[in-house]
Order: sequence, then C-alpha cells, then structure tokens
Amino acid sequence: MSASPFPHPFDPLSPEEIRLAGQIVRNDLAGVDVNFRVITLLEPTKDEMIPFLEHEHSGIGSVSTPSRVAKVQAYVGQAGEKKKFTEFMVNLNTRCIQSKQELPGKHSYIDADYMRQVEKACLADSRVQDEIRSLNLPEGATVVVEPWAYATDGMNDMNERVTMCWFYMRLSPHPDANYYAYPLDLCAEVSESLEITRMYRLPSGADERINDVKKHFDSSKIHSTSEYHPDLAKERRQTTRPYHVSQPDGPSFKFVGNSLSWEKWTLRVGFNYREGMTLHDVRYDGRSLFYRLSLSEMFVPYGDSRCPYPRKGAFDLGNDGAGVNANNLKLGCDCLGHIRYIDAWHNTSSGDPFKLPHVICCHEIDDGILWKHTNPRTGNAVVTRSRVLVLQTIITVSNYEYIFLFYFGQDASIHYEVRATGILSTAPIDVGDKVPYGTTVAPGVLAPYHQHLFCLRIDPALDGRLNSLAVEESHPMPTDDAQNPFGVGYVTKSNIVSEESGLDLDFASNRVFKIINENKVNPITHTPVGFKLLPCYSQMLLAHPSSYHARRSEYAAHAVWVTRYSDDELYAAGKHTMQSQGGEGIASWIRDRKQDAQQSSSVRNEDIVVWHTFGSTHNPRIEDWPVMPCEKMVVGLKPLNFFLGNPGLDVAISTQDANQSTLVTEETGGCCVKTKL
Amino acid sequence: MSASPFPHPFDPLSPEEIRLAGQIVRNDLAGVDVNFRVITLLEPTKDEMIPFLEHEHSGIGSVSTPSRVAKVQAYVGQAGEKKKFTEFMVNLNTRCIQSKQELPGKHSYIDADYMRQVEKACLADSRVQDEIRSLNLPEGATVVVEPWAYATDGMNDMNERVTMCWFYMRLSPHPDANYYAYPLDLCAEVSESLEITRMYRLPSGADERINDVKKHFDSSKIHSTSEYHPDLAKERRQTTRPYHVSQPDGPSFKFVGNSLSWEKWTLRVGFNYREGMTLHDVRYDGRSLFYRLSLSEMFVPYGDSRCPYPRKGAFDLGNDGAGVNANNLKLGCDCLGHIRYIDAWHNTSSGDPFKLPHVICCHEIDDGILWKHTNPRTGNAVVTRSRVLVLQTIITVSNYEYIFLFYFGQDASIHYEVRATGILSTAPIDVGDKVPYGTTVAPGVLAPYHQHLFCLRIDPALDGRLNSLAVEESHPMPTDDAQNPFGVGYVTKSNIVSEESGLDLDFASNRVFKIINENKVNPITHTPVGFKLLPCYSQMLLAHPSSYHARRSEYAAHAVWVTRYSDDELYAAGKHTMQSQGGEGIASWIRDRKQDAQQSSSVRNEDIVVWHTFGSTHNPRIEDWPVMPCEKMVVGLKPLNFFLGNPGLDVAISTQDANQSTLVTEETGGCCVKTKL
Repeated sequence: MSASPFPHPFDPLSPEEIRLAGQIVRNDLAGVDVNFRVITLLEPTKDEMIPFLEHEHSGIGSVSTPSRVAKVQAYVGQAGEKKKFTEFMVNLNTRCIQSKQELPGKHSYIDADYMRQVEKACLADSRVQDEIRSLNLPEGATVVVEPWAYATDGMNDMNERVTMCWFYMRLSPHPDANYYAYPLDLCAEVSESLEITRMYRLPSGADERINDVKKHFDSSKIHSTSEYHPDLAKERRQTTRPYHVSQPDGPSFKFVGNSLSWEKWTLRVGFNYREGMTLHDVRYDGRSLFYRLSLSEMFVPYGDSRCPYPRKGAFDLGNDGAGVNANNLKLGCDCLGHIRYIDAWHNTSSGDPFKLPHVICCHEIDDGILWKHTNPRTGNAVVTRSRVLVLQTIITVSNYEYIFLFYFGQDASIHYEVRATGILSTAPIDVGDKVPYGTTVAPGVLAPYHQHLFCLRIDPALDGRLNSLAVEESHPMPTDDAQNPFGVGYVTKSNIVSEESGLDLDFASNRVFKIINENKVNPITHTPVGFKLLPCYSQMLLAHPSSYHARRSEYAAHAVWVTRYSDDELYAAGKHTMQSQGGEGIASWIRDRKQDAQQSSSVRNEDIVVWHTFGSTHNPRIEDWPVMPCEKMVVGLKPLNFFLGNPGLDVAISTQDANQSTLVTEETGGCCVKTKL
Repeated sequence: MSASPFPHPFDPLSPEEIRLAGQIVRNDLAGVDVNFRVITLLEPTKDEMIPFLEHEHSGIGSVSTPSRVAKVQAYVGQAGEKKKFTEFMVNLNTRCIQSKQELPGKHSYIDADYMRQVEKACLADSRVQDEIRSLNLPEGATVVVEPWAYATDGMNDMNERVTMCWFYMRLSPHPDANYYAYPLDLCAEVSESLEITRMYRLPSGADERINDVKKHFDSSKIHSTSEYHPDLAKERRQTTRPYHVSQPDGPSFKFVGNSLSWEKWTLRVGFNYREGMTLHDVRYDGRSLFYRLSLSEMFVPYGDSRCPYPRKGAFDLGNDGAGVNANNLKLGCDCLGHIRYIDAWHNTSSGDPFKLPHVICCHEIDDGILWKHTNPRTGNAVVTRSRVLVLQTIITVSNYEYIFLFYFGQDASIHYEVRATGILSTAPIDVGDKVPYGTTVAPGVLAPYHQHLFCLRIDPALDGRLNSLAVEESHPMPTDDAQNPFGVGYVTKSNIVSEESGLDLDFASNRVFKIINENKVNPITHTPVGFKLLPCYSQMLLAHPSSYHARRSEYAAHAVWVTRYSDDELYAAGKHTMQSQGGEGIASWIRDRKQDAQQSSSVRNEDIVVWHTFGSTHNPRIEDWPVMPCEKMVVGLKPLNFFLGNPGLDVAISTQDANQSTLVTEETGGCCVKTKL
C-alpha cells in the first residue's frame, strides 16, 4: 500500500508505522526477547468512522481523525524461558501502549520459520530416520516433511502447540518435482519444543486403522504422470495462439492512495496479514452500500475418518493467513491487460517492516454483453458491453492455492469469486485398494474427500448504518383462491429477521436474502431500498455437530447468518483458530448475547452484519490431478429496488469504432481482416 | 452455414437444398396454395449416424452416407379455403416425398407476417378504435399493438388459432421510443381469420378482475425515465475507456465447413429455425462425449393471476423459434476480439431460401487463471491462463432478448450460459396502487412476476452410445461407526437410475448427477468414466400441476430428467406448443412407455438423454428497467474420472513474453508502460 503523510483511517499501517509500533513495544519490554508475529492496523471503531466518513463525503462540518492504532501480537519472555503469547494495542499518535494482554492457551498463526525448524528436527530424529530406512525407498529419493497445524480432536489437546508431520518423497532431483505424488506411510507429531512425541505408520486400506506393519515402499507405485512443472511435464500443446488486451487510453480506474474509483464506484482497498484483501466504504454513485467486505474465514476439514486423518482440518485464514501467504503476482501471468499492482507490508519477527509485493492486482475485463434490445418494429439494435473491474489476490497454503476475486459491475452488482486450484493433499493407499472417502488419482496416491467452507463477511451500510435482513420466498397462490381460477398465480412473501440467527438456503421456494434499509423507501416501487444476496448453493459441514470440527467452525452450520455489528467480531470461527477448542465463533456470540439480559439480539433496523457460508464438498476427480483446473465458486450482491432504474443504462453504446474487433474470414482461422463497420 | 457439394449429414440444409425441397412439394401440390413455414433438415436417425461417425473418425471400412431429408411444414389448401397444416418428409437424394401428414389441431409457430396482419386488423376495427378513443390519450400518442400467442387456459380453447393483443403507446415521435413504458388498459382477442372476437379493459389493482370501467389514460403516468435508445436517453457516462483484444497470429480455432476444431475439441455446429444453435458429435482429444447438445425448450409463464394475464405463457422455442428470431450479430458490438460469424438459411413462405446472416459468433476469451501452483519450498510459481472458446447466439422475442452461449474449456469442461436481457413485458397499474405479483417500475407501469424455465437437452455418448445416469450424494458416516470415532468421516453413496424419471436437485446432500459409461472403467480410479452436471439451482414451475401451464410444460416439474433416446424426442414440451393442450411432453413419453408392455423404460446402460430444467423466478427489480442488465444462468458439464488426469495440464505456461500485458504505474491510471519482465 502506498504510504501517505496523512494516512486514511482505513489505510493499512505504513512501513514507518510498523517500525514505530515495533519500537514502542520493544522499548516497553527492555531486556526481554520479543518475537513479533503481527503488527497490523487496529481499524477504528465504527462509532468513530461513521462521522468521519460522513464528513469525508459531504465536506460539511469538521470531525477529528481517529488515532492510528497498531495491534501487535508477539511471543514475549526472558531468554531461555517459555515465551508468552501477548497482544498489545499501540497508539501511534500518542506513542503509548493502550493495552497489553497475555493470551494463555491461544496460539499465533503458523510461523513459517518455526515450521522449517520442525521439518529439520523431524528429519534429524533417529526414530524418524529408522522409520524412513525401514521403507526401503528407491535410490535417489528425497524425503519431504510437510508440517500441518494440528486439528483439535479432544484426544491429545494439550496447551502446547503440536505439529503433525506428513511425509512425502521426491523421486526426481528437480526441486519442483511433485512430491505429493509419493505420499509415504509415515506420520509424526512434534511438540512445541521440537521433540518428536509420536511416530506411526498410516492406514493403507478401508478396513485398516493406524498400523505398525513396517511395509516397504511399493515400487509399483512409481509412475511418471504426476508432474506439472514445465521442466518435467514437457508435452505441451502448441495450439493456443497469443491473446493480447490493450487499452490505448489507459484503464478506466483511478487510485489515489488506497482509494479506488471506477465507473461510479468508490471504495478503499485494505490488506492485512490474516484476511488479505479487505474492502471498505464501498459506494456507488455517491450512495453508501457496504461498510466493509472481507473473507472472514475458511475451513478445510477432511472426511477420511481413519486416525490420524481427522487431525487434518485447516483454517486457512486463522491458521495460515491469507495476507502473509499472498502471492507476488506477475504481469502477463496472473493478470492480463493493463494491470495496477498493490503492495502490502507485514513485519519481521524483529518488528521491522517487510514488503509483500504485488499482493493485489487491479484490472478491467470485458464480460460480454451488459444489456441489449432490438426493437423488432424498426430492427434497430442497441447493445452495451459489460466492463468489469477485477481485484484479485492469490494465496498459497502448502499444496493448495486459492484465488480470491472481487468483480464490480457497471450495473452496481458485486460478485465475489473463489477459485480453488493447486495440488490435492494426498495420502498413501495400497495399489489396487479402494476407500469410500477418497479417489485414487495415481498409483498409490489417495486424494481424500474434504470440504472447503468459506465465510464471506458482508457489513452493509445501505443508505446508512441501520439495515435489516428480509427473507423473501415465491409461493403459488392457493388454487381455491377466487383470484386464481387458472392456478397460475404466485406471490412473494417476505419476512424480516428479528433476532440474530443462522439461516438456510432454499432454491425450491426461491428464497431470497435481501439486505434492506427500512428507513428508506424507493419512491417508485414503494418498497425499502435493498441489495440481494446471490448465494452459492453448497453443502454445509458434514462433520457431526458434536465433533471438534463442528465446534471449531460454528459458521459452517448455516449458509446465512445475521448478527449485530460488533467492532470485535471479524472472524467467524473466532480470533484464535490454532488448536481452538470451539465456543469462539459466530454461534457462540449469538448464544452469549441471547443469554445476557443486558444485551440485545435484535437485528431489525440495527447495525447488522450478514455472513455467507459457502464452498464445496470436494470429492476429488482424477481431472484435479496433478494440479487442479480452477474450481469456481461465486457469490453475488445485486441492487434490489435500490436505484430508480438500471444503473448501467448510461453505459456507452457498443460500436466497432470504439471496440476495434477483427473479422475472421471463411478461408482460414489464421487470416484476419480488421474491418470498420 | 457454408454450402458444400458433399454436405455432412449434420449440415443444415443448404440454400439449394431448401429450394429443391420447396420445388418438390410445390410440384406435388400443383394448383394448390402453399404457405411454407418450415423447410429444415430432418437429422438422420442415430442408427444411421453412429456407424457413419465411427467410420468418419476411424477411417476404417466403408459406410453409406445417410440420405438428405428435408422436413417441410406448410399451410396447404385451395385458394379461398381454410389451409391445412401439413408436414412432408422430402428425400432430396431421390427427390421423393417420403411421407405427408396433415396435423389437425396443431398450429405452426408464430408467423411474423400474420402477426403484422393481426396488428393492422386490430387497429382498423371500429370497436378497438372506440376503446382507444375512450382512453383520451395525450396528443401525439401512437398506439402500438403487441400480439401474443394465446396460452391455453381451458376456457376458450378452440381449434382455431387465437391471438391476444396487448396495447401500448409511444409518446415520442421517435420510432425507437420505449412503448412498454405506457401499457394501456386494453386487450383484444383476434381470430385466425383476423376478426376481433373480444375486447376488454384490463384489471388495474390487486382486488380487481377484468373491468369495463372506461377510464381515461391517467396523464400523471407520463414520465421521462424509461428510454434506453441513445437518441432518447442522452446522458451517457464517458468514463469507460476503450478496450481492445488482438490475436496477432489469428484465433486458435478452425472451421472446415461446419466442423469446428479448437484445443483438442472437435464438434459440428448446426442451426435450425426452432432450436437455433445445435452442437453435434462433440469430442475431446478424439474421444466421443456428446452426440448432441441443444436448448430444447423454454417457457415463460406469468404469475399474475388476474384474467386475462394467465393467458401470458410463452414457449419461446416452440411458439417463436430461437433460429428464426436470431439476431444478426455485429462485429465490435455483440462480440469483441477476433470473430468468426456463421450464417444460416431459412425459407420464405414461397419456399425459397432466405439468409439469416451472422446468427452465431465464434471467438475466444481469456478467462483468468486455469491452474496455478507455487512450490512453497522453491518459491517457483507455475501458472497457466484459461482460454475459452465461445459460441454465442442471441434472440429477440418481442420485448425480451436471450443470449445463449456455449463455453468450451481447455480442461474439457463445457458451460452453457443463458443471459436474459431486453425489456420487461409490462401491464398497466393505477398510480399509487400495488399488487403482490408484480413490481412497479415506473409510474403506472407494472412488471409482473414471471418465470423463465429452460430445458437443456444433453444427449451423451461418453466413449460410446450406452451410458447411465448415476446420482451420488455425500453423507456423514454414522457417529457410532467404530471407524468414525471423531465424527468427521463422510462417504459418497451412488445410485444408478434404472427407469426413465424426473429427479430433483439437493445441494444439502451434495447430490451430483453423473453421466457414466459403465462399460468403460477408468484404469486409475477403477470407477466408470463419466461427466457430471453442474446444475443451475432454480425454482421449478409455480403454477399448479392441474393448470394448463403445468400440463403444457411437463419438463418444468423436475430439474433433471433421464429418458431413453428416441430420434423423435427433441422438444421437452412436445412438437407443437402453439395452443397446446398438454400431454405431449417429456412426462407423457415416460408415462406412455411405462404403460406399454412392448416398450422398455430402462435407462441403465442404454442410449439415454439427460434433460436439465433451470431458469429463474423473475420477480422484477426496478434495476431491470427500462432495459435489463443481463441476468446470467449457467449450467456446466465437467469430466469426472473420464481422463487420466487434468486435461489442461499441457496448456502453455503463462509468460509476459506471450501475453504482453501493460503495467499501470502509481502516478496515474492513464499513464502506462509496457514492460517485458
């Protein structure tokens, strides 16, 4: 993000601010070891921000700018002692530590440096070495250790951080050979102090639990079809001819600092270590739509019930971080056309700023036709093409990648897309064996069933802070209704949600979730202004409600949640998901407020947040191997009687003069004539 | 379509063939009036085509080429007499009429010439003129009559064709002024012989039935916000900067006649007056996937229960024709980039060929990332971008337009998209009034609720003619299962459909419809090769099962149907939908076969057809007015353990050298530097 001498309250911390926050904490802790995990913006309270934004947009009156506050999380302690996970709120204006709190029993997100130590410790351990030796691996094999955060299972949940280590083998000397093609029959648990506390063989068939049969590696598993890297998978089609996008007058968007404006849209782009890209103060044609849009959490529970696989359950935001794992996007590779990149800043363990380059790309695409009508009486066709603004960020979490995209339309629609790609997490399976919770994708390679459950946090501010959630369905009129003599009538029935709750989708009744502002009635339709959610229909969590998977991912029980706004509630599965025990997420907040007579759980005409849980039950196909073609999941937000008509009505009419397309003639695909019509 | 001296059996009739078929019929009917409605290809039987295609692709042996047969439908009769709707099958090789059949009680699709006569007759009628006068319309108003095919309602269903006429007013002298902005309080029914048989006033409020109160036009309905034509809606944004696509080496697709090849795909493009674009013999990497893909039917029933609105129910394929109403697509307007257009041929009423120019466009688009993985150990990222082939056709049916798109992916996926755009069909409403089955989109303008229900016909041929349909769901393992101690396990359960039937979607169980070939087992996964349907979750028909809407649109009762293949079953609502009475569609075929001991209704390992019903319950938003931003509905077909891995694994790795993108610098959106990385 670009630094500015006067940062906007939504601007991520600048490198100078990160350094300053680190210094303030270090000064406070003189003589104590500090391992900085997070130095990030604590966003101002909404109570502070609403008047600030009103002033910013109206220019009327004056308001004070909220203080810049850094949220700092660090492991703190005397040299040689166990470090305590501690959170500091540091006011950068006053240079004071506002608060300081130890977080006993909580763990910070995954530390890449520590994980490298786990790998090393694992491979250096003599028991591990014995087990590897007993596999009798082929010559030239390199063992690769893949550490995973331990998913709480109620069996082995100490206060200490535990790391599960899975073992793979790289057969080729090429460093980018796909080691997931050779999952080994080994597993280790490693303690916080890097001791190997448990070591075992993995189950290899459906009816088998953890076994300690020391089988050799089965050399019939060796195969050559699992490589994706161009050095190793050399057969590449040559048939795809170049495709270039140019915008002779430049792109239609404009950045001023982190403020982005494009085709009547204005918004602020934010970024942090955990959620990655966040959007703030989203407006269309000057009208407020959303206070904040963000991916709140995602959970990837595995469905293989055999021990130790139930310990595979990854919170990729809470445990890994969509910000720190964001890819450095490359021109012409990840993005095509006229691209503006955005950098972000994180911190080193010593509290210095650390650049995350090109974590977001911004560009435009053509999305086909926006609207068209031909008057059949005159034959006159009027067409406009749809230009879409794209904000893209990509993360790598070990084997998988996720591509997160916001699309803004000229018709005032927003779409949020997740593309899942990368490599499946694999487990060993005996050649010729078969299990009902996984797909064999190569000899000896099981791709276990799993789910990807995302939660999009939608903080609406439709024409103001007080909004409601209405649930509307379409129902046939009764056939005995005198008004319905032909049995064809149907009506909509709408119900405004009164209390905080989790709700389900139902396409059979055309159930529509509408965020509305009951204080603002559309002068033409005479109904409250609103936006509707276009949900992504998905199976919810399959794990049993009593399981730790379910208790830890409360948001995964329902597709739509509505809660009262709280500055402190950004993460649907709770603040600290690493080895969490449950009771920290969205259902707990709701339950706690319901049980507390001092608190309201009313969500009608209140400051509300709408959460959408969606994703996929991913029972792998062999076509997802050795690298997955993107699996797309899309959520939309569309105006519903919010404006006075089609917001894209005024988009320029399409002409060949402007669009300069090329006619491909009958003779050959390769022979083109550029024609002006 | 390009003519060839040796047409392929799937090639639409050439202009010469159309002329020849017309001549043969005319010769047969010397001295009789013939009004040709249809001269189209009768596709050869599948029994003929399977050996032909096998030979075509293998080159082995020899087979005879099926005869070219024209299906001709015409109104036939002595001058001055009532014409009989008659169907002829004309063998163009032998120049013989193979069969000739009168179709009593059936009606041909809408005849544009006849509809113009209806409009004229209506406006010339003195009763109509009286009623118009009684409205006391503002000066300069032009009354526009919009004829609609009559939707059977059991009340008034004579053998004769009836046309419903709706009345609108154009206030501006501009011929493209939006007359749907002024729906008038009038309706007329017109007989086949152009007599006005009934004339009445429309209901104007929720509790009102047809009324004969002769109200004046309410001048407070006059407004200026309902124009879309650039001459009339002059305020246009100037902010969208040009966006050009170029392919310096030309497109990657190639046509030889109607045979299209692109990135391992081969298929034949067909086109006919009714279904519009059809796809035949779709193969990937030489393997057979689909024998035929087509939109089979679409139905648009209106939900306003007040008489005469239940008579609004349009079969836009059977009544109107997606082929004859296809737009002449314009370079740079409807299509961007390097575009190949395809022409089609229809016939005039005298049996001469009539060109439908540019009814399909073919081009490529960039669809973002196809797959990506960054090896976190080496930091090496490998990315491929997704190139997609698009086949687009657009139809105008009075007020609405539909855009139909097939997308072919490099990962062997097919997506079918429908975009609904155009203008809402409107009805009058009193200013200030409100009804529960429509949205007021402008003063006095009601946009009634309605549904769009499409049926995609999928004729699979996965590695051969005999396929099955499997229904797979994901279910939690019981918690008391010894194998599931942590309650997180889940498995898939698959059921192969044995009998012809209609089935429903269920995302809650992750129900997946898989077309499989049980005779062909994937050597790695050990499961039958297959493709899965990615359905479009939609509410089915809301009209009561006893209603004529439901009886006429049998396919609209379930989302997925599987039937035995029959050469004669292309249209899910029956062959003749104009004033159909029901009993002619997909459920009737199934019922009839079940009741006939001579016939099988088995669909397991048989030649099957899968039908997907989808669409939208379209309760208009004001944002759909005066012209709708496209509403997208998407269906997908994806390989499921069909190949040996990701079919797009060999797509070229993305590089800036090939993709030539442009870096947008920090300073200004308008200032760009083209960089080679």
